Amino acid sequence: MYTHEITVRVRYKETDNMGVVHHSNYAVYYEYARTEMLRERGFTYKGLEEQGIMMPVRELNSVFVSPAHYDDLLTIKTRVVEAAGFKAVFEHEIFNQDGVKVNTGRVVLVYVDAATRRITRAPKWFADLFAEE
Amino acid sequence: MYTHEITVRVRYKETDNMGVVHHSNYAVYYEYARTEMLRERGFTYKGLEEQGIMMPVRELNSVFVSPAHYDDLLTIKTRVVEAAGFKAVFEHEIFNQDGVKVNTGRVVLVYVDAATRRITRAPKWFADLFAEE
Amino acid sequence: MYTHEITVRVRYKETDNMGVVHHSNYAVYYEYARTEMLRERGFTYKGLEEQGIMMPVRELNSVFVSPAHYDDLLTIKTRVVEAAGFKAVFEHEIFNQDGVKVNTGRVVLVYVDAATRRITRAPKWFADLFAEE
Amino acid sequence: MYTHEITVRVRYKETDNMGVVHHSNYAVYYEYARTEMLRERGFTYKGLEEQGIMMPVRELNSVFVSPAHYDDLLTIKTRVVEAAGFKAVFEHEIFNQDGVKVNTGRVVLVYVDAATRRITRAPKWFADLFAEE
Repeated sequence: MYTHEITVRVRYKETDNMGVVHHSNYAVYYEYARTEMLRERGFTYKGLEEQGIMMPVRELNSVFVSPAHYDDLLTIKTRVVEAAGFKAVFEHEIFNQDGVKVNTGRVVLVYVDAATRRITRAPKWFADLFAEE
Repeated sequence: MYTHEITVRVRYKETDNMGVVHHSNYAVYYEYARTEMLRERGFTYKGLEEQGIMMPVRELNSVFVSPAHYDDLLTIKTRVVEAAGFKAVFEHEIFNQDGVKVNTGRVVLVYVDAATRRITRAPKWFADLFAEE
Repeated sequence: MYTHEITVRVRYKETDNMGVVHHSNYAVYYEYARTEMLRERGFTYKGLEEQGIMMPVRELNSVFVSPAHYDDLLTIKTRVVEAAGFKAVFEHEIFNQDGVKVNTGRVVLVYVDAATRRITRAPKWFADLFAEE
Repeated sequence: MYTHEITVRVRYKETDNMGVVHHSNYAVYYEYARTEMLRERGFTYKGLEEQGIMMPVRELNSVFVSPAHYDDLLTIKTRVVEAAGFKAVFEHEIFNQDGVKVNTGRVVLVYVDAATRRITRAPKWFADLFAEE
């Protein structure tokens, strides 16, 4: 199964009144990790959109294990659970610079034809990006 | 079971390149609905924080049923599933102005003592806000 | 000169580690005020976009006079300084529920043809919305 | 005068319905650049806060020269105009990967004592970070 790891620095804008990262930002961190994982594979999500395929999120599940704080350097570990067929499933685990688990997430996306806005199959080359491992 | 309904207008800032509401904003809509539900009950989340209780989100689950667009007037229906004890559970359903279901969400929050940052029980008066129905 | 007033409630998501509204949110408050001002005049910015005119922001100037906090009920006063020709200029003043001035802003937007992405003139009916006062 | 340069990748979340970066995000890019500039000098803004000094933004001026798009790799050039005394002034210029100027900004921040929330002088060592060049 294909896995990937990247770091992201918590921005001031992402913190809230409680002095921690607001929970809505984790979806953005997951998205960032998926984007950079694709880039590492030699491809971009932008390129996928230019070929007429969009990938809207269909399901999002998060567990907020412990708070992250301003300027934390978070490591996001991503596993591609599924990429062929009509949907892609990613699992993310986020750790802070001390190795403490901060968050886990699971995101289900579907492939949509940008012209018709209907669900479609993953392009073969796209599914193959993750299948070959 | 206590239920509540409120509308929210989609802001331009909340849309993305796909021309729809970015999925990370739904957590903010849920939070808005919970805040206004409390206000309708004669109380504020701000007041709870001033009494030394914070309510960080522990779990978030969303299903993105159909896209919302700029300037849509969304109706958020909220049910309080649980509020006493160590956690509060809310279920949200979001519909657009045409009655189309856009999103469903389930959010689990815990009560935290602001001074010690440890999990604590719901204040009785708080749990009672929702129990009496 | 056409003026307009609307209130907006500060969301938890808009606060930061300093316990105040993060400065980047004021641009969103201004945008909200402009949108609702148009709606009050019987029109929508969404409708303008559907007619092929977009209004990107060209200049933004803000002075942060005093901090706003979570759950503050802000009043945004907007003046239309200019709306005909190639640009629209709006001035905003924001006050909290105690009448304390929180922020002042000035935003310059241009009219852009959505098809060509070139700057264009304000549609006459749009400029007239504000001229008749 | 101290200058600094850093890149930032445009996130999907930062785009809007117009297919470009929403104007409110530039304040966040400036903030990111200032933070990383400090880190390059061997210091962190987080450390400054831990010493009881906060730096809220007092003035923000932006000119949006040309649009930035999803996945653009932006270069932010920052000049420290002033850092001693009661305020710090930064000028930012942002370019895309093709060298096209996207945005210019000027941000004035003040030094605030976190305990009293009153304006104070820059710590000498902080002002010196930028003065020695």
